Amino acid sequence: MSLLVVGSVALDSVKTPFGEVKEVLGGSAVYFSYAAGFFGPVRLVSVVGEDFPESHIELLRSRNIDTEGLARDKGRTFRWSGVYDASMNERETLNLELNVFGEFNPTLPDAFRDSRYVFLANGPPSVQNRILDQMNGPELVIADTMDHWIVQERDAVVKLMGRVGGALMNDGEARLLTGEDNLPLAGQKALEMGPRFVVIKKGEHGALLGTEDGFFALPAFPTTSVTDPTGAGDSFAGAMCGYLARSNKTGTHELKRALAYGTVVASLTVEDFSLGGLRSATLDEIEDRYRQLHDMTTF
Amino acid sequence: MSLLVVGSVALDSVKTPFGEVKEVLGGSAVYFSYAAGFFGPVRLVSVVGEDFPESHIELLRSRNIDTEGLARDKGRTFRWSGVYDASMNERETLNLELNVFGEFNPTLPDAFRDSRYVFLANGPPSVQNRILDQMNGPELVIADTMDHWIVQERDAVVKLMGRVGGALMNDGEARLLTGEDNLPLAGQKALEMGPRFVVIKKGEHGALLGTEDGFFALPAFPTTSVTDPTGAGDSFAGAMCGYLARSNKTGTHELKRALAYGTVVASLTVEDFSLGGLRSATLDEIEDRYRQLHDMTTF
Repeated sequence: MSLLVVGSVALDSVKTPFGEVKEVLGGSAVYFSYAAGFFGPVRLVSVVGEDFPESHIELLRSRNIDTEGLARDKGRTFRWSGVYDASMNERETLNLELNVFGEFNPTLPDAFRDSRYVFLANGPPSVQNRILDQMNGPELVIADTMDHWIVQERDAVVKLMGRVGGALMNDGEARLLTGEDNLPLAGQKALEMGPRFVVIKKGEHGALLGTEDGFFALPAFPTTSVTDPTGAGDSFAGAMCGYLARSNKTGTHELKRALAYGTVVASLTVEDFSLGGLRSATLDEIEDRYRQLHDMTTF
Repeated sequence: MSLLVVGSVALDSVKTPFGEVKEVLGGSAVYFSYAAGFFGPVRLVSVVGEDFPESHIELLRSRNIDTEGLARDKGRTFRWSGVYDASMNERETLNLELNVFGEFNPTLPDAFRDSRYVFLANGPPSVQNRILDQMNGPELVIADTMDHWIVQERDAVVKLMGRVGGALMNDGEARLLTGEDNLPLAGQKALEMGPRFVVIKKGEHGALLGTEDGFFALPAFPTTSVTDPTGAGDSFAGAMCGYLARSNKTGTHELKRALAYGTVVASLTVEDFSLGGLRSATLDEIEDRYRQLHDMTTF
């Protein structure tokens, strides 16, 4: 089934206790689509600047990713740089240059408008809403958001919540959006805003799925070699949506499995900088960790 | 099978966003033994002062708890008072009066020395070690500890780790004890100190079990009505040990199930102040949440 992602393509500079990288391939749409590519084809919509290496685009194309919707605009590519603390749970943004991504408000290629599965990566909710306006009745739309938009454009976030099938956010964002400190209660309130399911990401503590059938909870895959958490959430979403699009079913049973694949792929992402962890992973490894995760949560 | 707990009996004063109670029944050995009592008989060793209400002791006796080892000394009972923040994840101790518990260094009743299962609740590791000296080769000893002792009496904690079958600690304590920020790695290092298994409690984020067979991870039971987290960890331990003592097996399979019972009973504890949540719970309710937890973690 067809899967569309709209989000950022970036050049990231990251420092963690385990090393430092400069201007490496990053961005939500990149992590998402590379992860989803393990499960099937992906359509990517984003924008880069004149300075963006062609080799990065070739890498994506080699991985089942259709880059027809990747515009190259005049100017520089989106840049982010940040540093993680020792626990890897907190990060500080040192520098953010939106550059060409600052004006990102894409017109979707005609061929992409019939995509059955859509992931709206974190971005201005007004832009996320305008992308939905261009779609021809997709089967499932999942949207990510973040604290900045919940505070600055709350009405647009709430509107978006009423238009999507699934909402993805982290624990702090769920609390901010709903005003509920209790996470299961925050999940319930988020569901009342419209989506059929809510996925609350908790980093090293795993993820919570809320549906009308109740909650499903999954711990993070306990990897002992966390090198760089950047992209964990987006690759989680990519594997989740990639699995859903491949199975073309979105019931609770499939959502649980999708969360498990997301968990596993995120654990591979964090084991290296940039796409290193995903590039060295195979589908066999993913299936192997999936079975391990199953065993380590079954009692 | 016989189960012994050595720990505190206290009068707690607690304030949370949902209310406030003064001088209610609390303490690690109380929460532990009440929770374990759902699964079988418990032997309690602790000390109270002259002011401790006899009705509290009667309550414990009515619940399968042998109080022969509960001394009544001259002076006042151990008192703790604290306040929780809105998220219920952080608490501040407002007042701590050790009183008669300050000199707690018990001589075990002869009838208790052959107990097959032993839980050493948080306390001075020197005292925990002296209790083990009095035991006649128990099947399994599980010890709890906390940051204060890891910092102040590190050698005694490390010695204790080499003498127990299972160690129980929270995530911050595991990091402090091992110097590892990565939690699975901290679990591995804790295992190297001696115990056959380590249980790392993560509050609202669940618990992690580390054994030679690898990790097992369980989310917290997603209760939407957290009233007072006091006693969650000790009742978790109580249900865990109560289940192990009842089944009289301590392999990984039983440990996983024991963690699940601990998780469920902790979720009942936090739904009311003091023992309120446990007192209104039935074994049927525990079994029902156990099945729910199974369903919400199975994919």
